[in-house]
Amino acid sequence: MRTTVGIVGAGPAGLLLARLLHRAGVDAAVLESRDRRHVERRQRAGILEQGTVDVLRAAGAGERMDREGLRHDGIELRYAGTRHRVDFPALTGGRSVMAYAQTEVCKDLIALRLADGGPLLFEAEALAVDGADTDRPRVRFRHRGVEDVLECDYVVGCDGSWGVTRRAVPAALSRVFEQTYPFGWLGVLADAPPSHDELVYARHDRGFALLSLRSPSVSRLYLQVPAGTDADSWDDGAIWDELERRVEAAGAPPLTRGPISQKSVTPMRSSVHEPMRYGRLYLAGDAAHIVPPTGAKGLNLAVGDVVTFARALVHRRETGSDALLDGYSATCLRRVWQAQRFSADLTALLHRAPDAPPFEDRLQHARLERLTSCRAAATDLAEGYTGLPF
Amino acid sequence: MRTTVGIVGAGPAGLLLARLLHRAGVDAAVLESRDRRHVERRQRAGILEQGTVDVLRAAGAGERMDREGLRHDGIELRYAGTRHRVDFPALTGGRSVMAYAQTEVCKDLIALRLADGGPLLFEAEALAVDGADTDRPRVRFRHRGVEDVLECDYVVGCDGSWGVTRRAVPAALSRVFEQTYPFGWLGVLADAPPSHDELVYARHDRGFALLSLRSPSVSRLYLQVPAGTDADSWDDGAIWDELERRVEAAGAPPLTRGPISQKSVTPMRSSVHEPMRYGRLYLAGDAAHIVPPTGAKGLNLAVGDVVTFARALVHRRETGSDALLDGYSATCLRRVWQAQRFSADLTALLHRAPDAPPFEDRLQHARLERLTSCRAAATDLAEGYTGLPF
Repeated sequence: MRTTVGIVGAGPAGLLLARLLHRAGVDAAVLESRDRRHVERRQRAGILEQGTVDVLRAAGAGERMDREGLRHDGIELRYAGTRHRVDFPALTGGRSVMAYAQTEVCKDLIALRLADGGPLLFEAEALAVDGADTDRPRVRFRHRGVEDVLECDYVVGCDGSWGVTRRAVPAALSRVFEQTYPFGWLGVLADAPPSHDELVYARHDRGFALLSLRSPSVSRLYLQVPAGTDADSWDDGAIWDELERRVEAAGAPPLTRGPISQKSVTPMRSSVHEPMRYGRLYLAGDAAHIVPPTGAKGLNLAVGDVVTFARALVHRRETGSDALLDGYSATCLRRVWQAQRFSADLTALLHRAPDAPPFEDRLQHARLERLTSCRAAATDLAEGYTGLPF
Repeated sequence: MRTTVGIVGAGPAGLLLARLLHRAGVDAAVLESRDRRHVERRQRAGILEQGTVDVLRAAGAGERMDREGLRHDGIELRYAGTRHRVDFPALTGGRSVMAYAQTEVCKDLIALRLADGGPLLFEAEALAVDGADTDRPRVRFRHRGVEDVLECDYVVGCDGSWGVTRRAVPAALSRVFEQTYPFGWLGVLADAPPSHDELVYARHDRGFALLSLRSPSVSRLYLQVPAGTDADSWDDGAIWDELERRVEAAGAPPLTRGPISQKSVTPMRSSVHEPMRYGRLYLAGDAAHIVPPTGAKGLNLAVGDVVTFARALVHRRETGSDALLDGYSATCLRRVWQAQRFSADLTALLHRAPDAPPFEDRLQHARLERLTSCRAAATDLAEGYTGLPF
C-alpha cells in the first residue's frame, strides 16, 4: 500500500486528521488495531473546548454535535458546603465548551471517513514504523492475520500512549516527562437524569467528586479513589452514597439515582514525550502526551496536534516550505505544557492527597476562595478551561 | 502598671498599633524585650503593600517614607534568559508598592511613639500572659532586672513566632498549621547601586535569585540555598558570581559589585496559629503567622492584623458592640490564608526544590509563560502582590 500520510490509530486524533487531509485534497490511510465496534464504544472524554467545536464544524463534522451536544456556559465549583458558578462566556468574551462524548465524535468521523472513500482499516495492527528518518517512512502492520506495509511520505502516530509509533523515536533523541498521582477516578455511567445541567467539580475532605453528563437522561459521575482501587469493590449503593456526601452543598439539587451501566477506575498520570517529531514521524494526541482527566484536555490536545500537522502540510504544499512541519513539535509542545499546567493545577486544587498535611488543606480552601472571589483568577481558569485558540 | 491595651513587642505591628490607638485616644503600653538600637537595626522586610502605605500615611507615619521610600510600579520576572515586566498600576487600576525597609518603619514609629508620650519600654521582657480568659488580663514582665505586672483590658501579642504570648493560648484550643521548605535565602546587604530600579525575581536551574534594593546606593540581594547553609561558607566573590549566573538575561543591565556589609541565611517556613484570639488576648503579626519571604507579605500581614484590632476596639467604644472584636480571628485569618496561598505559589513558581522531577521544571516554565502572556494571570499576581485593601 502507498499513501501520502499514514495515520496509525483511529481515535479522534487519527480520524479527524484523515478528515482534515481529505478536505485539503491530501491522500491518507488510517490503520486501527481494534474493530469498529470497540472504537465507537470506548468511554473517554466528553468535553470539547471552543476551539475543538470550531474545528469540527469547519471540517463538516459538527452537524450531529450541534444537534445533540450540550453547550456548557460554565462549571460549578463546590467546597465547604457552598456552590460557586464560573461563567465562561462572561469571563472570556463569549467562549464556552460542548459536552459531546468522544464515542460520538468517533462515530461521526468514522461515518465521514467511510463516505470520503477511506481507506480506514480496522483490525489492522501496526507492528513498527521503519525509516522514520528517511523520505519514505513505512508502517508495517498485520491486517486480519496478513502482514503488509504502508509506504508513506509522512507517518502520524495517533495510536495512544501504549502504541508502537512512539517507540520508533530513538530513546537517545527523546525524553519523557512523567508524573503519577496516588489516586485515580472511579467513573460510572448511570441511566439517571443529571442533577445539574453543567459540570459540578466538588472538593471534599473525603476526596474529589465530579458530576458530569452524557445526555439529559444519562449521568457520568466520578469519585476520587486511591490508586489501584478495584472498581468492583464499590457497589452501586456505596457509589451513590459517597457521591451524595462529597457534592453536598446548601441549595444543591439532590442526586437522582439510577442503574449504573458501566464502572471503571482510571489511573491518573501525566506524561509528555519530547520532541513530538522524529524525521517524518509525527506523534499526536495520547501517543505524545497524557493528562489527568480533571481538565478534560486530552481529546482537545489531540485535536490541536492534528490541526497543527494538517496546517503545516498544507503550508508545505502551497509554499514549498518545511518551516511549519519543522516547527510542529515546538508549536504543539507550547500548548501541551499549558494544558499540563492547567490540568495539574486543577487536579491539585480539587483532590485530596492521602498524605496531605493540614496546611495544604487550608491552602486548597484559600485557592478556591481566591478563584471564587477574584475576577482575574476566575478569568484565568475560564480561559484555560475553554481553551486557547488553535 | 495599668493600661487599656498591653502591647507585647515593639516591631512594626506593636509600634503601629500603639500609634493607631493613640490617634484614637486609647491608652496603651508597649513592652519590648530588646533595646532600641537592636529594634532599629534588625534587617527584615522592605516592601510595603499599597494598603500598608495608605495606613502609614493615615497614621501620620508616612512623611519620611514618602520622601525616602522608592515607589515600585512593577517587578521583573526572569527565566530562561528572558525578561518580563509585571506592570502593577496598569493591571490593578493604579496600585503599587513601596520599597522602604522595616528598620526605617520602626525608627519612624518609635520616634512617633516617644513624641506621643509613650509608654514604650525597651529591655522589658514579657514573661507570661495571665488571665487571658478573664476581663483583666495581665502581662508579667521583667524590666532591667525588676519584675512587674502590666494590668490591661486587652493584650495584643506582637512578639513574634518565638514570643510568650502565643503560649498563653491553651494547646487544646489552638491548632498550628505548618510547612517547611528544603531551602532558605542567603541574603546580603551590599554597598552597590542596584542594577535595576525594581525588584527582579529570577528562576534559574541553579535556584532562585532576587535583586532588591534599600536605596539608590544600597542593594539587597538574595540567593536560594539549601536549608541549613552556613552564610560564612559563601565568600563575597562566590555570591556575586552566583547572582550573575542566576539573573542573566538578554539585555539585562550588569550587576555592579560592591562591599557586602551583612550576610545571613533565612530559613523558609510557613505557619499559622488558629485561632488568633483567646479571650482578651489577640495575636498579631509573626506571633500568629509566618510566611516565606518570597511574597514580601510578613510585615503587611502584621499591619493588617493591628488595623483590624484597632478598628474593632474603636467600634466597641463607639457602639458598645463586641462583634468586630469577636470576629478578629476570622477576619484576619481570611487575609492570612490568602497571603499564605500567594506566598506558597510564588515560592513554588520560582524556587527549585532539590529533588524536583524534570516534569516539575517544565510545569514551572509553563506557569511563568502563562503569567507573562495572559493578562488575567498577570492581574491575579499583581493584585496579590500589591495586596488586598485592609
